Amino acid sequence: MSFIDKIHACNAWNPGDFVPLLLDGARVGWLRRSACDHLRRWPEQFAVESERVTWVGAPAEFAARTAVLDTIFDRLAEEGVVSHLHGERYPLTAGAREQACCLIDRACAPFLGARAFGQHLNGYVRTARGIEMWIGRRAADRRHYPLHLDNLVAGGLPHELSLVDNLRKECTEEAGIPRALADRAVVVGAITYCRDSAGGLKPDVMYCYDLELPEDFVPVCTDGEVESFRRLPLAEVAALVRDTDAFKLNCNLTIIDFLVRHGFITPEEPDYLEILAGLRAPLP
Amino acid sequence: MSFIDKIHACNAWNPGDFVPLLLDGARVGWLRRSACDHLRRWPEQFAVESERVTWVGAPAEFAARTAVLDTIFDRLAEEGVVSHLHGERYPLTAGAREQACCLIDRACAPFLGARAFGQHLNGYVRTARGIEMWIGRRAADRRHYPLHLDNLVAGGLPHELSLVDNLRKECTEEAGIPRALADRAVVVGAITYCRDSAGGLKPDVMYCYDLELPEDFVPVCTDGEVESFRRLPLAEVAALVRDTDAFKLNCNLTIIDFLVRHGFITPEEPDYLEILAGLRAPLP
Repeated sequence: MSFIDKIHACNAWNPGDFVPLLLDGARVGWLRRSACDHLRRWPEQFAVESERVTWVGAPAEFAARTAVLDTIFDRLAEEGVVSHLHGERYPLTAGAREQACCLIDRACAPFLGARAFGQHLNGYVRTARGIEMWIGRRAADRRHYPLHLDNLVAGGLPHELSLVDNLRKECTEEAGIPRALADRAVVVGAITYCRDSAGGLKPDVMYCYDLELPEDFVPVCTDGEVESFRRLPLAEVAALVRDTDAFKLNCNLTIIDFLVRHGFITPEEPDYLEILAGLRAPLP
Repeated sequence: MSFIDKIHACNAWNPGDFVPLLLDGARVGWLRRSACDHLRRWPEQFAVESERVTWVGAPAEFAARTAVLDTIFDRLAEEGVVSHLHGERYPLTAGAREQACCLIDRACAPFLGARAFGQHLNGYVRTARGIEMWIGRRAADRRHYPLHLDNLVAGGLPHELSLVDNLRKECTEEAGIPRALADRAVVVGAITYCRDSAGGLKPDVMYCYDLELPEDFVPVCTDGEVESFRRLPLAEVAALVRDTDAFKLNCNLTIIDFLVRHGFITPEEPDYLEILAGLRAPLP
């Protein structure tokens, strides 16, 4: 396997399998054709045509729109059409987080093909032997990717939290990183990808952070998301990404981006320019 | 002005103004319509149609192809159709440098709309006041961008040199950086852009390097490309990029990339995702 395979795996979707969800002339999501059929049950809300769905019944107000979608998704979750509700609030947006037209439950974002935003942090230590990276292993009871490897800290961005506040919170919960240390994290870019998943389309933005950790720092998980941590030489992490499916799928991309920025993946890599472009795939 | 304006300025071209140059079924360049008219004078070499030019007379051998183009460009340079010949050899390629089908003079790359490759190095110092960057000012006798600001080291990649060897050479010539110090440069990615210039189309790849310099290092130009150097706080460099046209156009992008990777341009920047995508524009 190669690095570019992992990038392709995060960018696998067929535009013909999805139709746009329109609100006020803007495209705010992408619906699988089976999702369109479910929305036909609310004809006063959704005009379902063969190549588009328009949210014609949307109230003018932000909170009222949110309430309409909550009612619909409560019903779809009861029926098992969406697998569960998460509880965290995500924006429904045609562009940036700040341009949300209303809120949705985090677990419903793929059903709507809504843009989702998250933060991924690579924690590393500079040693005499070279860079070593702290890697988590997800707990066995996780709904997604149980027992897979993960970045030191990674989490979705709920609507009501700023990037700084959410990163501090995730650093504390997932890895026991105190606030003063978390604040040394440097935002170094973002990765964009779009993937057809079981729950629907995922056009995702992952803001990426580097955090250089002291030699004696040892992470501790307090929220049960991770069962253990290991510190590995960068070459070993790179081999796990390139040659195995050990990592949660999108974490591979965060690490590939780190490997590029730190000169570990070089222009001599045959797919170098394709890797660079693939880390910033256009969002539909 | 804003950072995104500088990215747009490097990506300004109209596909309708150019037609593909084909060789053996692959597109190896893009010709302005006026360039097509010049190539009509060699009908045994070029089949010029309204929407494509095919190099039908190309010899099978690499060296013989190079010789054919040299003869043609000697003539076009004599007549002033191309402004000059540079002397350095560039690849003519549909993809990577290693996939060259023959060589061309560096100065003729835009006439053919050939992919060109270069290396840009940001030299910086970590101080108690924050990061400071070494900036060069181009000499008054430069053909391109005289007296404009420039990265500490930047140069095109001739065909016969490896990236490592060319970077060492440019570091010595342009900034007096000794080999041991140059070898500490870290390759951190590449920027791609495509621009309609006076000489033709420039679909360019700039490999980017970060070099952390000791506090007491002072660059010296030995090849006359740069007339002076200044060390400036990062905020001042960022303001020069954002608010002025002081820098050679493509150097703005190398600095914007540095500002992103070092956490100076953050997701709070309104055009953040557009900036990230714009630094890796698809090459035609």
